[in-house]
Amino acid sequence: MSHKWVYLFTEVDEAQQYVGGSWDSVRALLGGKGAGLADMIRGKLPVPPGFTVTTEACNAYLAAGEQFPAGLWEQELAAMKATEAATGKVFGDPSNPLLVSCRSGAKFSMPGMMDTVLNIGLNEATVAGMVALTGNEKFVYDSYRRLVQMFGSVVMDVPKDDFEKVLETYRHQAGVASDSDLSVDALKEITAQFKQIVKQVTGQDFPSDPYDQLKLATEAVFRSWNGKRAIDYRNASKIAHDLGTAVNICTMVFGNMGQDSGTGVLTTRDVSHGDPNIEGDFLINAQGEDVVSGTRQTMQMSDMKAIMPVMYEQLEAICHQLENYYRETQDIEFTVERGTLWILQTRNAKRTAQAAIRIAVDMADEGLISRTEAVTRVQPWDVDFYLHPQFDINAKKAATARGELLAVGLNVSPGAAVGQVTFDADTAEHWAKEEGKAVIMVRPETTPNDVHGMLAAKGILTSRGGRTSHAALVARQFGIPAVVGVAALEVDVEGRKATVNGVVYREGDWFSLDGTTGEIFTSKIDTKTPDIDDPYLLKLLSWADELRTLGVWANADYPADARRARQFGAEGIGLTRTEHMFFETHRLPTVQKMILAKTEEERDAALAVLLPFQREDFDGLFRAMDTLPVTIRLIDPPMHEFLPSQETLLVEVTELRMTKPGSPELAAKEALLSAVQAMHEANPMLGLRGVRLGIHFPSLTRMQVRAIIEAACDCTKDGVDVHPKIMIPLTAHINELKVQQSALEAEAKAVMAEKGIEVNYQFGTMIEIPRAALTAGQIAEMAQFFSFGTNDLTQMTFGISRDDAEKGFLLEYIDKKILPENPFASIDEAGVGALMDMAVKAGRATRSDLEIGICGEHGGDPQSIDLCHRLGLDYVSCSPFRVPIARLAAAHAALKHGK
Amino acid sequence: MSHKWVYLFTEVDEAQQYVGGSWDSVRALLGGKGAGLADMIRGKLPVPPGFTVTTEACNAYLAAGEQFPAGLWEQELAAMKATEAATGKVFGDPSNPLLVSCRSGAKFSMPGMMDTVLNIGLNEATVAGMVALTGNEKFVYDSYRRLVQMFGSVVMDVPKDDFEKVLETYRHQAGVASDSDLSVDALKEITAQFKQIVKQVTGQDFPSDPYDQLKLATEAVFRSWNGKRAIDYRNASKIAHDLGTAVNICTMVFGNMGQDSGTGVLTTRDVSHGDPNIEGDFLINAQGEDVVSGTRQTMQMSDMKAIMPVMYEQLEAICHQLENYYRETQDIEFTVERGTLWILQTRNAKRTAQAAIRIAVDMADEGLISRTEAVTRVQPWDVDFYLHPQFDINAKKAATARGELLAVGLNVSPGAAVGQVTFDADTAEHWAKEEGKAVIMVRPETTPNDVHGMLAAKGILTSRGGRTSHAALVARQFGIPAVVGVAALEVDVEGRKATVNGVVYREGDWFSLDGTTGEIFTSKIDTKTPDIDDPYLLKLLSWADELRTLGVWANADYPADARRARQFGAEGIGLTRTEHMFFETHRLPTVQKMILAKTEEERDAALAVLLPFQREDFDGLFRAMDTLPVTIRLIDPPMHEFLPSQETLLVEVTELRMTKPGSPELAAKEALLSAVQAMHEANPMLGLRGVRLGIHFPSLTRMQVRAIIEAACDCTKDGVDVHPKIMIPLTAHINELKVQQSALEAEAKAVMAEKGIEVNYQFGTMIEIPRAALTAGQIAEMAQFFSFGTNDLTQMTFGISRDDAEKGFLLEYIDKKILPENPFASIDEAGVGALMDMAVKAGRATRSDLEIGICGEHGGDPQSIDLCHRLGLDYVSCSPFRVPIARLAAAHAALKHGK
Repeated sequence: MSHKWVYLFTEVDEAQQYVGGSWDSVRALLGGKGAGLADMIRGKLPVPPGFTVTTEACNAYLAAGEQFPAGLWEQELAAMKATEAATGKVFGDPSNPLLVSCRSGAKFSMPGMMDTVLNIGLNEATVAGMVALTGNEKFVYDSYRRLVQMFGSVVMDVPKDDFEKVLETYRHQAGVASDSDLSVDALKEITAQFKQIVKQVTGQDFPSDPYDQLKLATEAVFRSWNGKRAIDYRNASKIAHDLGTAVNICTMVFGNMGQDSGTGVLTTRDVSHGDPNIEGDFLINAQGEDVVSGTRQTMQMSDMKAIMPVMYEQLEAICHQLENYYRETQDIEFTVERGTLWILQTRNAKRTAQAAIRIAVDMADEGLISRTEAVTRVQPWDVDFYLHPQFDINAKKAATARGELLAVGLNVSPGAAVGQVTFDADTAEHWAKEEGKAVIMVRPETTPNDVHGMLAAKGILTSRGGRTSHAALVARQFGIPAVVGVAALEVDVEGRKATVNGVVYREGDWFSLDGTTGEIFTSKIDTKTPDIDDPYLLKLLSWADELRTLGVWANADYPADARRARQFGAEGIGLTRTEHMFFETHRLPTVQKMILAKTEEERDAALAVLLPFQREDFDGLFRAMDTLPVTIRLIDPPMHEFLPSQETLLVEVTELRMTKPGSPELAAKEALLSAVQAMHEANPMLGLRGVRLGIHFPSLTRMQVRAIIEAACDCTKDGVDVHPKIMIPLTAHINELKVQQSALEAEAKAVMAEKGIEVNYQFGTMIEIPRAALTAGQIAEMAQFFSFGTNDLTQMTFGISRDDAEKGFLLEYIDKKILPENPFASIDEAGVGALMDMAVKAGRATRSDLEIGICGEHGGDPQSIDLCHRLGLDYVSCSPFRVPIARLAAAHAALKHGK
Repeated sequence: MSHKWVYLFTEVDEAQQYVGGSWDSVRALLGGKGAGLADMIRGKLPVPPGFTVTTEACNAYLAAGEQFPAGLWEQELAAMKATEAATGKVFGDPSNPLLVSCRSGAKFSMPGMMDTVLNIGLNEATVAGMVALTGNEKFVYDSYRRLVQMFGSVVMDVPKDDFEKVLETYRHQAGVASDSDLSVDALKEITAQFKQIVKQVTGQDFPSDPYDQLKLATEAVFRSWNGKRAIDYRNASKIAHDLGTAVNICTMVFGNMGQDSGTGVLTTRDVSHGDPNIEGDFLINAQGEDVVSGTRQTMQMSDMKAIMPVMYEQLEAICHQLENYYRETQDIEFTVERGTLWILQTRNAKRTAQAAIRIAVDMADEGLISRTEAVTRVQPWDVDFYLHPQFDINAKKAATARGELLAVGLNVSPGAAVGQVTFDADTAEHWAKEEGKAVIMVRPETTPNDVHGMLAAKGILTSRGGRTSHAALVARQFGIPAVVGVAALEVDVEGRKATVNGVVYREGDWFSLDGTTGEIFTSKIDTKTPDIDDPYLLKLLSWADELRTLGVWANADYPADARRARQFGAEGIGLTRTEHMFFETHRLPTVQKMILAKTEEERDAALAVLLPFQREDFDGLFRAMDTLPVTIRLIDPPMHEFLPSQETLLVEVTELRMTKPGSPELAAKEALLSAVQAMHEANPMLGLRGVRLGIHFPSLTRMQVRAIIEAACDCTKDGVDVHPKIMIPLTAHINELKVQQSALEAEAKAVMAEKGIEVNYQFGTMIEIPRAALTAGQIAEMAQFFSFGTNDLTQMTFGISRDDAEKGFLLEYIDKKILPENPFASIDEAGVGALMDMAVKAGRATRSDLEIGICGEHGGDPQSIDLCHRLGLDYVSCSPFRVPIARLAAAHAALKHGK
């Protein structure tokens, strides 16, 4: 006997046995839809009889150059016989015709990407039989019209527009808006014309033999696996290309047989906000595509409850049964045919981030899933939802109702953006920076020359390009909402306008775009930032906290940041950048005096002015973080960052030389230029910064340590429980620590002696230079803690200057897939991760209780957090807003890899 | 019995037994001088009887707070008895007095750093006895005067000047130039006055008891081990501080007993050039210090041969005996006392680099040492001698004779420099760059603000500072001859003059300074560059070649360089920098056109112009290196290096905006500025360069590969045996190689097909980014060879920008000993070396026949070559001039670590 290519829906046990038992393998064999249908049959749910042609058959067909494998057609014929037996109808028999649908169904849902044909089995003879049987001529001819239209376009490749034009003509003649309002005669004429079109375009007659229809439809679904849309979708969704699709042949049931019939789609819970109510759309006397296509105004499920209470009750019970069975919110298609309920599909429902969180928490509270499962079901990026403004969902619905939904494109960078349209980067930048306008930058596509405008814009919109286009990459990189690939949009940069379906939009018009969904609106829509105090989120995070082993700390430079971080659950401050305090307007002149000092006395005088400011900064942090550690990094950036730019001074001096030669003003500028030039470095990132500054200007870091310890002593006196950790940046060699740390240690002791108070402090270092990681065993002899600075470590390990590269060749690299992802977004495991691993092992070999964390942006990236967990770090530190994401990601890592 | 602290010279076997046999341990116990004397006694050479107080005694004395250890004094007394027995004289006996010298002698020679006292045993009574015995009153009183003077200053700390003033007064009164011309009466008076000075200064009488003299002298020598001079010397020479010094008590013999007496120092071979002749200085009727002090005009050894033929013959025989025994050129002190020859010291002779090479080769040819030993005896840095101009030795002698030797300072950076004196950096730079003058920059000391002047100068001279002063560090770093710490030099920067002993030298005067010896001359002295074709050097290098396993290749950008490299023994070209070809004046405009091209067509047109130039370059290289590999690195530097500087353009544009607004000239400059600004990078070292350029401008590297393969095909047609190796720079990720190498491979194949010739080429990559080293196992999947670029690798591993740091904080780091040495001079083994080790192992694990080399400056550094040998590299590649150094260093590494 030949290989088994076809399984009846009732043969699910057999299929499961063949693949070895796992439900995942059954889904791989039968596709998600087929497995779901079979599963529902097993659960005694009302599923119309039918069968599934396996994904193996699809793969065999494609591998053989589009030839059915041996035995497949015979098995399909046999399965049709079984289906005939189950329904009591006969395929192609005019007296009692069986009609079937033919739908694709791959392992992973690829909505809209592959093909479906309904009403297979109709021809002139069976149409007549159906009319006799149902007495509903209009229903039958409508079904026949649908078959010819769908089959013609899907199987026979007739352009859809060719059919649509005919329908439009008839609607126009009849003066109706909907195809369902056309007369029987019109439908008959239309069907005849459709057949002529098929003959004209393909040179072939529309197949009237139901078995020909079945075979050709099966093949069309097989081939649609390798259609361009499907391939693009798989590339974008990282679905393997060798899975193949199954084909589901299912007895047709009809929601369009009158007022006792209907069809709908629902989710067992609200997938926008997560409320535990059935939500969905329903239509009386309609087929499924009418609900989905949006051509008819649908009813809510509550309407169905009123109109068909019995059916609704049955449906509600089925929803509970399916949710309990799958332990997940279900997305269900159903049809009522003359008072009988049929379930046509069930699958796990897609949902918004907010809904995902509420549903997971509710299901755990209902006892349907465990708390651990609830935590794993919410992705760290779902929490990101709470960090960005979003459109109010009702405002969007209202805008859609007002006809302001312009188009839907690719949702490549999430978030809501509202602004005035402009068409070039310079204007975008000028409007944003000089005129304070909110800008939406609209381009056919973007290039590196547009980046300055993109960065100034609230949102980015392009008519071309895909998920890895330049616009998409830049937008995601910088967190700017973006929608790309809006083919309907014609952008006329020269003419300063954009056209959609003939409607012209001009520079300055307001657009709203939703990067989360890809929607574009031609109006201003209200946004709101979600409330991070959402009780469901807080509950979920508290469960995550019990699962994770990684600590989650935050980066905070000011007491307000520290308080916010603590509110979000931070267990310490992993990075306070002291230089940010220096940049404040009223302090900067003193900082410049300190840098430009010609004598130690001048420098000390400037430092004496800065000391109380710094002390006050630290005092506030310590109080905000009472009982928790506060890691303070000593001054890090190159000094020239505090000085006017060399370029600006060069222009000013050149001008003054021509206009005011010999003036004191010129002399002063020249002196400043000369000082700035003396400090100029070819590669400041690799220059005089970090601990090198501390060694070069010892009085500067001594002042900082004095400020830290003075504040710590003062707080201790006031009963605050202070844990300062002083962090030395950019160490490359153990001797740097020996020199710097010893000097600072002495200062700390001196301050404590003056204050008569002992403070429990530590000295540690950033590990952010490859050499520090390579010699971590030595460095741990001095350092009491490590904190990975993976921004710098990535820059040096890759030899890539972040500032330059993220606007330049790095995007090109990601675009060309030379780099699988941006190493500044997620830690490069093979390179940077290898150095971290060495550093952790060597550091702990020297000092077994060495505390090791990571600060910097990778600390808030779930993929990097997973790596940090595996490397055995003690904590990650990230921006306060990312603390909830990190808490969840750390729990995921612990669940995935063990503690 | 107490520990044995004292060994008679004759007890060398006993000493050897005590330390366990090794001669090195004997030297550690008895000091170099003591061991040498004992050894000569064993060899039956005429050494005056005496004994050695061990270094253990010295250490015990110092450890006990300057107390003789138990038994030491008793043993010294016993050894004196034995010495009395050997000489037949009695210490302190007026009738036949024994006189002894007391000299320091540590394991390693520290010339002039510790103390010596001669003529111990003289007092009023023994002086009288000596006069009676010798009948030479002048000799005896001269000896007595010397004792009081030396003992007074060395043991009793009387300032030397106090004695010198008295002598000067007497010389002045007598109208004589030399102390030896003073009368007996004058000597008597002087001695009496010396004793009064001792009493005045110290409050103590000069000790008349010979045993008191002996004990105090012994202690003085012990203490001199911890004198400031000695400690400084040991720090500079890396000699351990816990070795201690031995004390040698040796029977006095007198070269100052008349015309049948004399004294001299000689080396068994010429130590300037290495000629196999005895060379030295000799004086009739003199004591050793007269020869050394330079106060009397000495005779040559050839004079001695004429005057004292018998003595000379004996001495010649002894020289041969000692050279044969020690298998090294000896530095010998001898005295003739009334026709009897005594040898007072022998040690290995210091020599010039040139002499070291000739002597080693001669000794091997004579069969005295093996060729391997000859190779080990020459240090790689000795070969450096051949690379720098040197003063003609006779010209220096003549200048010294003319009184033009101004002073001798610390020889901190070798080589000869001749130039006009100036006193500040700006003038130095201006004179050198604008006026084309040769400049010697003279400062009290230097700071980072002086660096631009120092770099422009031919030589650097400072009155203050030591071997690790800023001036010394900068000079060594940049290979500029320098002499520092010339205390006699008073520099008056304001007055634009320098004064030495009252003589004033003004800005613009000519100085010559010898950084190799520390000499400063007040005139122009001829220099010459040594002939690298020195047959001794060539012979030695050929022996080295047989010992080494590392290949030695050269970096060469032009055919002339390649020919020179080959002449120096290079076995291949390890690096051709293609960009140097782009910088040539007539090509640069085309290169700029290529960079600034707005379309691919414009760029291709420019590349088409460059192609024949590049092909011609490579053609010449291949012909020069017929049969040997030529490694060509594709374009590496950031593009802006080929464009005018942003700063210059900024000034020009600003000026034009004010003077010629709206002019086409301004518009052109503005366009250029805008292009340059668009290419500007914050950290170009980490920016768009190397393989990133090749990926960004694929047509550029494709043109280069076309040029390489076209040239290779053409050469092959002409019968040249061509081995091109195409090297891709700055790889960080295997995917870069996949993209770039595949594209270039296709171009290479296309060219070969066009030419109808197959060329045996390879593709490889630089390993110069930490990530490349960390992922070398992956990278070796594509790369057929690796070449370490340790300049960049050091920059990124350390996070130090070389250009900035070597003029800035890196010098500070080396000065403060935070870094043991400049990592750009010698590879940092713990950091960069660790990465190299990983890369070698992982690369070879993937591709067992992977060829691995190093190019860049470390390739010519002996310490780095040693590391490369240990890491198992196949070759080092360095500048052509360094090839001989590398050949020798590679042999040393093989001998030290095995093959």
